[in-house]
Amino acid sequence: MTKAVSTLQTVNTPAVLVDLDITRRNIDRFQAYADVHGMKVRPHIKTHKLPAIAEMQLRAGAIGVTCQKVSEAEAMVAGSPQIRDVLITYNILGAEKLDHLAGLARKVTLSVVADNETVIDGLSSKFASQPTRLNVLVECNTGADRCGVPTPEAAAALAQRISAAPGLVFGGLMTYPPTDGAAAVESFMTRAKTLIEAVGIAVPVITSGGTPSMMSAAEAPVATEYRPGTYVYNDRSLVSRGVCGWDDCALTVLATVVSVPSANRAIIDAGSKSLTSDLLGLSGYGHVLGRDDIAIDQLSEEHGRLVSQGLINLKVGDRLRIVPNHACVVTNLVDAINILEKGEISAVWPVAARGKIV
Amino acid sequence: MTKAVSTLQTVNTPAVLVDLDITRRNIDRFQAYADVHGMKVRPHIKTHKLPAIAEMQLRAGAIGVTCQKVSEAEAMVAGSPQIRDVLITYNILGAEKLDHLAGLARKVTLSVVADNETVIDGLSSKFASQPTRLNVLVECNTGADRCGVPTPEAAAALAQRISAAPGLVFGGLMTYPPTDGAAAVESFMTRAKTLIEAVGIAVPVITSGGTPSMMSAAEAPVATEYRPGTYVYNDRSLVSRGVCGWDDCALTVLATVVSVPSANRAIIDAGSKSLTSDLLGLSGYGHVLGRDDIAIDQLSEEHGRLVSQGLINLKVGDRLRIVPNHACVVTNLVDAINILEKGEISAVWPVAARGKIV
Repeated sequence: MTKAVSTLQTVNTPAVLVDLDITRRNIDRFQAYADVHGMKVRPHIKTHKLPAIAEMQLRAGAIGVTCQKVSEAEAMVAGSPQIRDVLITYNILGAEKLDHLAGLARKVTLSVVADNETVIDGLSSKFASQPTRLNVLVECNTGADRCGVPTPEAAAALAQRISAAPGLVFGGLMTYPPTDGAAAVESFMTRAKTLIEAVGIAVPVITSGGTPSMMSAAEAPVATEYRPGTYVYNDRSLVSRGVCGWDDCALTVLATVVSVPSANRAIIDAGSKSLTSDLLGLSGYGHVLGRDDIAIDQLSEEHGRLVSQGLINLKVGDRLRIVPNHACVVTNLVDAINILEKGEISAVWPVAARGKIV
Repeated sequence: MTKAVSTLQTVNTPAVLVDLDITRRNIDRFQAYADVHGMKVRPHIKTHKLPAIAEMQLRAGAIGVTCQKVSEAEAMVAGSPQIRDVLITYNILGAEKLDHLAGLARKVTLSVVADNETVIDGLSSKFASQPTRLNVLVECNTGADRCGVPTPEAAAALAQRISAAPGLVFGGLMTYPPTDGAAAVESFMTRAKTLIEAVGIAVPVITSGGTPSMMSAAEAPVATEYRPGTYVYNDRSLVSRGVCGWDDCALTVLATVVSVPSANRAIIDAGSKSLTSDLLGLSGYGHVLGRDDIAIDQLSEEHGRLVSQGLINLKVGDRLRIVPNHACVVTNLVDAINILEKGEISAVWPVAARGKIV
């Protein structure tokens, strides 16, 4: 957290900016919703990858954090003594990852998920000899068709296997639902909970997630906690879904116009290596703030092509702020982000959990 | 270049592998073509970002390297004393970048490009006071519609401006052509060269590039050098264009199956943070070697979804090697790559120029 010496006019571009005032407002907004509905919040740090922003989320009322990979969790825990409760929402396999997981479990309250017996057996073989037992939740497929057991019956079977496995504690049920999946979550989880409780096993946690549907999370009251990620920054994908407005987008990419080769076209110094090629169903690669007429119709690694139906009306050297399609992947591309407070760069923060894919 | 202690069976996944034997063959193949046609080779390092592989290219006969950004050039020059001649194919703007450019010019023979007066004037204002003059090539648009002056006449005008600018030397003409653009390159460059020579200015270099059309580079004999990038590793995009076969793909992503939720679907631990979401016009996000029946139909950041028309026939814990759509962006996502020699991991190399976007 070095002191910034640059301004929006001088900082080297492309640069990723994060407005801390907007970030704080985004955190508070969902925490208030969750508080009203008696739902716990466990934010996914994949969006920011920053211990300092996790601390803001915890101060606002979050009960812990969610990480996707073991190395990501290690970077976050190393970066903040306030991160004491971590859920890794991933099937963890392999000797090296299990060693690191055991190391993490000695430092924080740790939970993971599993959707198959191979993963459960691997976790058990490691944690049977560890001083603390590992919480394992069953991942359930409520319609997103990624990981997860397909039925409540399969969830109950794995819950029993976890419950009987040396070194493990059954921690509950987890899902990453499809957008507008609250009804599916309620139905699947209610049935799974009933089946598991019927064999005498408690279901302490039912955790759901996803920013797009977070403001209707309470429509699945069976869930005890929610794991929003992108809500902390927001992005063009969420604006296009009507979840937020441009003023709620905390993360922007500052770029410089390097060429204006024709009257309706300009090239910026931000390409897929800063804006990413994630489309998330959209057309174009980001929104130029204040220029609704412009589309970013093509990215190469270091060039972004801006086209307008009318005159592009930009000159070489102009600086633009762009809301990317998908904020989470942008923070994975840069070693550091520039923190904005009251519209000015106040600090440069290294992205602690960037590139932590194992 | 630490000694590797892991194997393909034990290395933590996802892991990026680079087969050095295939890499060497790819380098030699294009160098041989260029040698036959009397064309110089200046490989673009954006694909590998590794000083050691640039050295392999130089040993094979390359006259220097191409970089896209100043920081990328700095990382490469810092990483190898053999890199003595660098072309940065980018419009460079701004005080901080110009300072770094001047630093680089004191270490190596340095050339950049410009397609507008603002960039030329900025370069001149910096280099007028430097001990060595900077080579500036004019970037020409031969149909890719990214950067570049639109006509040979505009190229000639900028050549004159560079030639007259304190601190600068006119270095020639540069283009990044569209695929199969050799005829357009020949036509544009021949006309531009004639116009520039007519006013008494020599055109020492005409440089073209792009892997997809590299084996027909000689169809634009006006060009004196060629800048292939992806050829060093190849990727699914190039296989799909018929440029190479799977056996020519030096870079693969090793992933582990973490879930097999249904008979025709499996999930691997490699998502957009290792395979990237670049499509390059393809459908799906990579090719699973040895499994032509499988499509990678969906990526999230840490999950890749594999689907088969028939039985997926994979089990949790299986390891797969995937040829990504676009090799260049994959090497930007990892801190280090695993070097394969004779099919085994022989070393782990840090990706020196990863994340160098300014």
